[in-house]
Amino acid sequence: MPKMENEKIVIGVAGMPGAGKSVVRQIVKEMDYPVVVMGDVIRLEAKKRKLRPTPENLGMIMLELRKEKGPTVVANRCIAKIEKPNKDVVVVDGIRSLDEVQTFRRRFPKFVLMSIHSSPRTRFERLIRRRRSDDPTGWDAFLERDQRELSVGLGNTIATADYMVVNDGTRTQFMRRIRGALRDMIAKWEK
Amino acid sequence: MPKMENEKIVIGVAGMPGAGKSVVRQIVKEMDYPVVVMGDVIRLEAKKRKLRPTPENLGMIMLELRKEKGPTVVANRCIAKIEKPNKDVVVVDGIRSLDEVQTFRRRFPKFVLMSIHSSPRTRFERLIRRRRSDDPTGWDAFLERDQRELSVGLGNTIATADYMVVNDGTRTQFMRRIRGALRDMIAKWEK
Repeated sequence: MPKMENEKIVIGVAGMPGAGKSVVRQIVKEMDYPVVVMGDVIRLEAKKRKLRPTPENLGMIMLELRKEKGPTVVANRCIAKIEKPNKDVVVVDGIRSLDEVQTFRRRFPKFVLMSIHSSPRTRFERLIRRRRSDDPTGWDAFLERDQRELSVGLGNTIATADYMVVNDGTRTQFMRRIRGALRDMIAKWEK
Repeated sequence: MPKMENEKIVIGVAGMPGAGKSVVRQIVKEMDYPVVVMGDVIRLEAKKRKLRPTPENLGMIMLELRKEKGPTVVANRCIAKIEKPNKDVVVVDGIRSLDEVQTFRRRFPKFVLMSIHSSPRTRFERLIRRRRSDDPTGWDAFLERDQRELSVGLGNTIATADYMVVNDGTRTQFMRRIRGALRDMIAKWEK
């Protein structure tokens, strides 16, 4: 079966906190494609280490795990989850570095990287409204979290994406852009 | 006069090689705003050091100058050029790091950062067609140049831009997007 697995179209999604990745996940689910969330590896690790999923804990684990097991540890733990579903297209949410991109490209030749962009101001306002357990509460905490994400290579990943979808208008507009981008990516590999 | 100077709207432009920064420069000139090209600092330094402006030489100087004089050396050398023209709006092309962004933000409170994005494949094809003295000739040289640009922090700069303009369609489409983004940025500061 490995040959079959490698024929899968794997769409990686990268974006700074609050850029709109959760909207992408929602659309992908509507389109009936499975989503592998890389952050779940970190959340599971928090559970194993009996730590609460606070922003500080998750951020710390994200960095520590990479330091302990190398920059591709999270990507490697996702490969089986990508291979498992019997689907032609799988979406991987939360790519953070070019090492991870390389890991996926090697395993899945039909890998394509999509980035989501919103301005820092917009992301901050969105995170304040959302307030998930790992979302920051003030501008300084926001910048700190941005810095932590950039420190593992997220900026380089975003800057060299195959697709860039901008989330600076309405939610409806963004949803339309995402649907268009996904269809476009899939059509390119299918032809 | 320093107070007057600080009232200027300064629009910084960041983008990976081949993303479309030269099109931005062209449009900015049409709109009659002065453009300060940060890469000119490197080209001038090459002249001073009596080195030809090959990709390798310019890349090396770009890195060496930062190592010798600090990460804001190029930004600092541009400040006088930004302050000089008697214009309300000045565009600074070729921002490469968050240190540079911070330098400009401190000096010009009305600073706004715009990033330009194209996929690596598109950028490569564009550079091959263009072939300026510092443009790479093959895919490996292209990746090496990308890596050099990312190593000083260009990825982080792009990922945290206030505006992201995508250059993945026709030239006309891109020109329209750039004009719209510039007008939008200027209108926001002017109100």
